[in-house]
Amino acid sequence: MRATPRPWLPHRKDMKMSIPASTQQIRLEHRSPAYWRVTFDHPPLNIFGPETIPQLGAVIKSLESDASVKVVVFDSAVEGFFLTHYNFLAKLEESTSIPRGPTGLQALPDMLVRLSRAPVVSIASIRGRATGVGSELALASDMRFASREKAILSQWEVGAGLVPGGGPMARLPRLMGRGRALEVLLGADDIGGDLAERYGYVNRSLPDSELDGFVDALATRIASFDKEAIADTKKLVNAASLPSDAEIAPEWDAFLASLHRPATQARIKKLMERGFHKPGEVENRLGYHVGQLGSGLL
Amino acid sequence: MRATPRPWLPHRKDMKMSIPASTQQIRLEHRSPAYWRVTFDHPPLNIFGPETIPQLGAVIKSLESDASVKVVVFDSAVEGFFLTHYNFLAKLEESTSIPRGPTGLQALPDMLVRLSRAPVVSIASIRGRATGVGSELALASDMRFASREKAILSQWEVGAGLVPGGGPMARLPRLMGRGRALEVLLGADDIGGDLAERYGYVNRSLPDSELDGFVDALATRIASFDKEAIADTKKLVNAASLPSDAEIAPEWDAFLASLHRPATQARIKKLMERGFHKPGEVENRLGYHVGQLGSGLL
Amino acid sequence: MRATPRPWLPHRKDMKMSIPASTQQIRLEHRSPAYWRVTFDHPPLNIFGPETIPQLGAVIKSLESDASVKVVVFDSAVEGFFLTHYNFLAKLEESTSIPRGPTGLQALPDMLVRLSRAPVVSIASIRGRATGVGSELALASDMRFASREKAILSQWEVGAGLVPGGGPMARLPRLMGRGRALEVLLGADDIGGDLAERYGYVNRSLPDSELDGFVDALATRIASFDKEAIADTKKLVNAASLPSDAEIAPEWDAFLASLHRPATQARIKKLMERGFHKPGEVENRLGYHVGQLGSGLL
Repeated sequence: MRATPRPWLPHRKDMKMSIPASTQQIRLEHRSPAYWRVTFDHPPLNIFGPETIPQLGAVIKSLESDASVKVVVFDSAVEGFFLTHYNFLAKLEESTSIPRGPTGLQALPDMLVRLSRAPVVSIASIRGRATGVGSELALASDMRFASREKAILSQWEVGAGLVPGGGPMARLPRLMGRGRALEVLLGADDIGGDLAERYGYVNRSLPDSELDGFVDALATRIASFDKEAIADTKKLVNAASLPSDAEIAPEWDAFLASLHRPATQARIKKLMERGFHKPGEVENRLGYHVGQLGSGLL
Repeated sequence: MRATPRPWLPHRKDMKMSIPASTQQIRLEHRSPAYWRVTFDHPPLNIFGPETIPQLGAVIKSLESDASVKVVVFDSAVEGFFLTHYNFLAKLEESTSIPRGPTGLQALPDMLVRLSRAPVVSIASIRGRATGVGSELALASDMRFASREKAILSQWEVGAGLVPGGGPMARLPRLMGRGRALEVLLGADDIGGDLAERYGYVNRSLPDSELDGFVDALATRIASFDKEAIADTKKLVNAASLPSDAEIAPEWDAFLASLHRPATQARIKKLMERGFHKPGEVENRLGYHVGQLGSGLL
Repeated sequence: MRATPRPWLPHRKDMKMSIPASTQQIRLEHRSPAYWRVTFDHPPLNIFGPETIPQLGAVIKSLESDASVKVVVFDSAVEGFFLTHYNFLAKLEESTSIPRGPTGLQALPDMLVRLSRAPVVSIASIRGRATGVGSELALASDMRFASREKAILSQWEVGAGLVPGGGPMARLPRLMGRGRALEVLLGADDIGGDLAERYGYVNRSLPDSELDGFVDALATRIASFDKEAIADTKKLVNAASLPSDAEIAPEWDAFLASLHRPATQARIKKLMERGFHKPGEVENRLGYHVGQLGSGLL
């Protein structure tokens, strides 16, 4: 991987201060041996970076091998953000130096396809933004439930000149059909809970006050079922519904290739100048702001 | 197939009395040479057992070979039940001794895949429970319409430690996407008419008072069309949408394997003690009751 | 291709007068180098005939090769009709003599699959009838938005004894699942904007007064994005969602074969006698009228 000029990083040291890198960003709670919760807790934005990868990797490995776990719920402890985009302030080498995973795919797509195949039911409980990696993790989960008022899903990448890298081109058309998938990916806009349900982006959107109770009841119910019946049934659904790894593989390569293009770098720089990676307007309304980047470039 | 201990059958003779086995359970009516109705009429629960298989088989064979039939509607004469789960009181050998069908698949999946491919339009008109086999027959039909108030669809099997056997892992993700299919199959809960429509489990749910008129008008309309145009168009849709037999085949094997597991037998025994296979609360609210089985087993 | 008796063409010269053949039926407007509009303007019905093919072909070729275009919107200038069925008054040889396209498919399906793969976002903005070819062009576009009050989508062909020829058997099940696709194709009825949204036939239906603003804002937004990111992302979605050409190819052959059948000719003749190809009741309510053809034939 050649080095990339990254014009949005003039004062690297200052920038890094806003994103503490090495703390534990993912909390794992065992509600019971059969029912686990994984909570993203990386304030202020739940940005996902290279340092998050081994933390998520440890969770995935446990889900694959633990004899008791039947269901895992992914949620967030950060107000306004379920899990958001990749960390564009981290050194690229920190990402590209992470070894490929057991599937042979690069680290992030490897973990997501393994989550999809794990003999455990995964449920994304989405409150706040699920943008970029956050959307991709939700799509790799078995089911998705969203807060009607507070969930925002998006694949924002094309708006910044990027190709998304974590599987959404393979997964979205299978969930919602080609037309709506292309709107999500090429429109690159924020999608609220109700539209997400109408499009099949999530199983259901629920009133925010009901989301936690609904997901907990479903997870508790599934945790009371037989692990072998769950795993054998899911395996047959996988055969009918999962994209092959060969279909997933090109996405991360296309993401990295797009990141190197000067046109993309110019867009990300403009987004950084507006406040990308900082709490506030740009992160809260990323769909709107990527729609403003092109004017000076046309 | 080795013999299975079936701890829920202590008093076999008594149990059989509640399920008369050899009566005609399926009525075939020719509204016209082109428009047939198949009515499930096996009170009190429209349970589907080994003795139902040849009766349904005769219908499927006629649909494949009759020169005039263009459309068939499946409905029920039993209040509260469209068609429900397999008969767990019948001797297992009565099921496993039925020879494989022309496709090489075991008898039930053979009939369902042949229904899907028949050069005739099949419409499930769902009022009451379509549980297990009932859901699978509806999914193998070309279209499904449901009573908004009175239809309940479910794949309850995982809740009892079973893997469903009649095709739903192959068919549901193609209808509603992986996430909703996994919720139906791994949540194993009752799904009402409106949610069934939102999920794409049925084409539409209609007010109960409008269901019969709607389905009859659609069937009458299709019966007025040209049989060859119907058959040729359906054949091209089949190529784009049907799972291969190789994808269907493992489901019935997985169902039988799951039936033999002691953990599954314990769950079915508990369900029998609660009143499974008898008119009443358990059969009416099967989704709720399979959610109660795990507590003593955890 | 053998000659076909065409009993609905007794007075060929008179009939042709109602459908002027050689005028420009498609207008191409460059709102900007990146944002194009293609407007069907072939009053009174926006019928699509052999003479339309090279006009649409020129547009497709430009979309494939132009270095600047990122998004194209298809709309209509004809009240009540987005784009409707094929011209059954044209000589069949005018259609069959058009050479196959670069994909090796016959002219119309060739253009539609190339539109699907073009490195440009295509959006159908549907007001009025999108029947037959109109529906097929919309389905080959990347996204579809419909007027809630004024859009009518339909694949009417089976109602006249025809097999649709431009891809809908391959495309509809992937968008809306097999059950709803079979209802659209074998019911052959008119589908309004709201049902089209519920079925996934269109991305969304919008109040008629909002449709133009919504589509224009989305197209303008996409036109501000990076062409390479759009094209690379779309290419990966194509791999996950497009039918192969081998799956599209048999549809046009089946359409031509069905057109030659005497039973089909009798239906089209009856439809012509009712006013097919003329402004008025039959063209406005084609779904109803194909439902009336069978009575005398049964």
